[in-house]
Amino acid sequence: MNTPQIDVHAVADCFDAFRASKPRVHCITNSVAQHFTANVLLAAGAVPSMTVAMAEIASFVESADALLINLGTLDPERRQAIELAVETSNAHDVPWGLDPVFVQASPTRLALASRLLLQRPAFVRCNRGEGEVLFEEMAFAERLQDIAKRFDTTLVVSGQTDLATSGEEQVSVANGHALMDRVTAMGCALTALMTGFVAVERNRLLATVSAVLVFGLAGERAAKQANGPGSFSTAILDALYNLDRETIIAEGRLS
Amino acid sequence: MNTPQIDVHAVADCFDAFRASKPRVHCITNSVAQHFTANVLLAAGAVPSMTVAMAEIASFVESADALLINLGTLDPERRQAIELAVETSNAHDVPWGLDPVFVQASPTRLALASRLLLQRPAFVRCNRGEGEVLFEEMAFAERLQDIAKRFDTTLVVSGQTDLATSGEEQVSVANGHALMDRVTAMGCALTALMTGFVAVERNRLLATVSAVLVFGLAGERAAKQANGPGSFSTAILDALYNLDRETIIAEGRLS
Amino acid sequence: MNTPQIDVHAVADCFDAFRASKPRVHCITNSVAQHFTANVLLAAGAVPSMTVAMAEIASFVESADALLINLGTLDPERRQAIELAVETSNAHDVPWGLDPVFVQASPTRLALASRLLLQRPAFVRCNRGEGEVLFEEMAFAERLQDIAKRFDTTLVVSGQTDLATSGEEQVSVANGHALMDRVTAMGCALTALMTGFVAVERNRLLATVSAVLVFGLAGERAAKQANGPGSFSTAILDALYNLDRETIIAEGRLS
Repeated sequence: MNTPQIDVHAVADCFDAFRASKPRVHCITNSVAQHFTANVLLAAGAVPSMTVAMAEIASFVESADALLINLGTLDPERRQAIELAVETSNAHDVPWGLDPVFVQASPTRLALASRLLLQRPAFVRCNRGEGEVLFEEMAFAERLQDIAKRFDTTLVVSGQTDLATSGEEQVSVANGHALMDRVTAMGCALTALMTGFVAVERNRLLATVSAVLVFGLAGERAAKQANGPGSFSTAILDALYNLDRETIIAEGRLS
Repeated sequence: MNTPQIDVHAVADCFDAFRASKPRVHCITNSVAQHFTANVLLAAGAVPSMTVAMAEIASFVESADALLINLGTLDPERRQAIELAVETSNAHDVPWGLDPVFVQASPTRLALASRLLLQRPAFVRCNRGEGEVLFEEMAFAERLQDIAKRFDTTLVVSGQTDLATSGEEQVSVANGHALMDRVTAMGCALTALMTGFVAVERNRLLATVSAVLVFGLAGERAAKQANGPGSFSTAILDALYNLDRETIIAEGRLS
Repeated sequence: MNTPQIDVHAVADCFDAFRASKPRVHCITNSVAQHFTANVLLAAGAVPSMTVAMAEIASFVESADALLINLGTLDPERRQAIELAVETSNAHDVPWGLDPVFVQASPTRLALASRLLLQRPAFVRCNRGEGEVLFEEMAFAERLQDIAKRFDTTLVVSGQTDLATSGEEQVSVANGHALMDRVTAMGCALTALMTGFVAVERNRLLATVSAVLVFGLAGERAAKQANGPGSFSTAILDALYNLDRETIIAEGRLS
């Protein structure tokens, strides 16, 4: 793959392109995360749509710029909607991202996630615990590039430092703040943002890394004025809305 | 129709009556909007109820003061609940309002919205794109009064300036702020508030215009202290809670 | 029952134990309350999980530290999930709490709540209107201890002052603030917090009273810096996160 240099300047360009194109991101996400996810997308400059109804999902997905599949609160309606949405997405070249939330807690969820992995997601975002179970790989953290290659996807693993790999190249992002773990749906909303960036930038590694960095930076900014998780969760929306390329270039921590 | 003068004094009286009577508004609304909608109603002084379960909907609707029908996230449960709720509502003289969210994006949604239009909603609120499709009317914006007459309803069209018409009379409201477009469920919550006002004021035009003006003013107040969409969405709840008749009379922009 | 002294020191110890053990609370709660409930649990130091899908509920409940059953927005999926969750809970000694939200508004809800009452909830939290209908007891407020004994549960009744009784002993908590009634899901989130405390403290009366006092105190703190219900609902999350034992001991109002 002939990748451009992935650095803070490329990230700033990617964010500018995202805002200029205002992608519509269709989100099949868990009911707990819907509200915050929609607000993150709007604050950053995208347009969310969120129906999970079988009768509507194909129309919504084929006209969307990208699709998010999040496996939390996996009721039968959502399960069916996911299968149809992914098919529609692949048939219309709408890129889609996968967040296999809590896949280790339920065999049903694991079976679905494993099936979805074979349907060419543009990227998968998970944490280490989810990844170890999903990829049946004990040496998960050491073998990210192999796994990305095997499934022909971009793999992003959240943690203290976030790692992203295209299979060829690996990047890590050190932005973020501990308060992000004390607010629900932060990870889910980040995956939605990554999906929005993938709508705009064909290099999946640059797209996903850009979203991770932008969201982490917004978190750092928010933490500076927050008194706890409540004010933090409103401040991160303000920070996303106000984030500019100068801040990305000065404070982004990529390596 | 023998309408009273619709001016800022009438709006202030209408808001006072709304707060004094604390109407219970039953909301069948999309899952993304439920939380913010409930908080808008509570902040303004109404009482929300929100179940969409078929086994419960009739009991909840017949004892409510007004009913909101919002077509976002239209799963089968909600679709059935909507039909039963509207029947129950009409049978018990509970006024109801219709928000045909994103009706242009799905044929199922359009078919349902068209059917509902014939069941005497107290009002319909939509934006221009939704209205053009729902009323099959290319000259939609120029023919609002004809459309309102044809369906014997009050029609409210959101936009830069909001327009409302009873078929006989037309009013426009210029209050509001651009940040309202960067927070999810603002339009859905406004329709819920309009529904609450309709519970209290029999003149539908005055009721809906009052809610639009009150919400727009709260948005202007909120924008003065907000740093972005996050702080804006909490500040608008504070502003609704604190809004007084003096502000409505001084800053309301009706024509 | 050999109860320890229930006083502000015991409450402070209980909150410390709660934070140290970070219980996972599985919540079957209404869709309006999910987001705020998850944030309350996270801010206080617990871990929420929220699926209501039949295929997953048993795995999630048997590995949880406690289970919340909230009857709001009672769709068929949730109704089935509740029955299975309670069975699983009892089979695995996972304590569970019951919030019979708005039980007076729907016969279906009342029938389910009555059945659940016989399945040994660790506690029931309701307000006076709900309690009178659920326990078919006109002299409800005067006979709390008898009712708690009859159902072998701890009963908590919310109101101006909150009352809690194990059947043997009765405690009242006077902390709280009127703004709590102007934000949706406050009561639902409190019941979730009580469920988290029950996971950690075997004395149900101490556990539930501790959660009520902690949440009420956070509300008082939040009200000091809030301008209305919007800023109040973010400030209460900050206050929960920052609450320390000194404040509990100095400002808790138990009797």
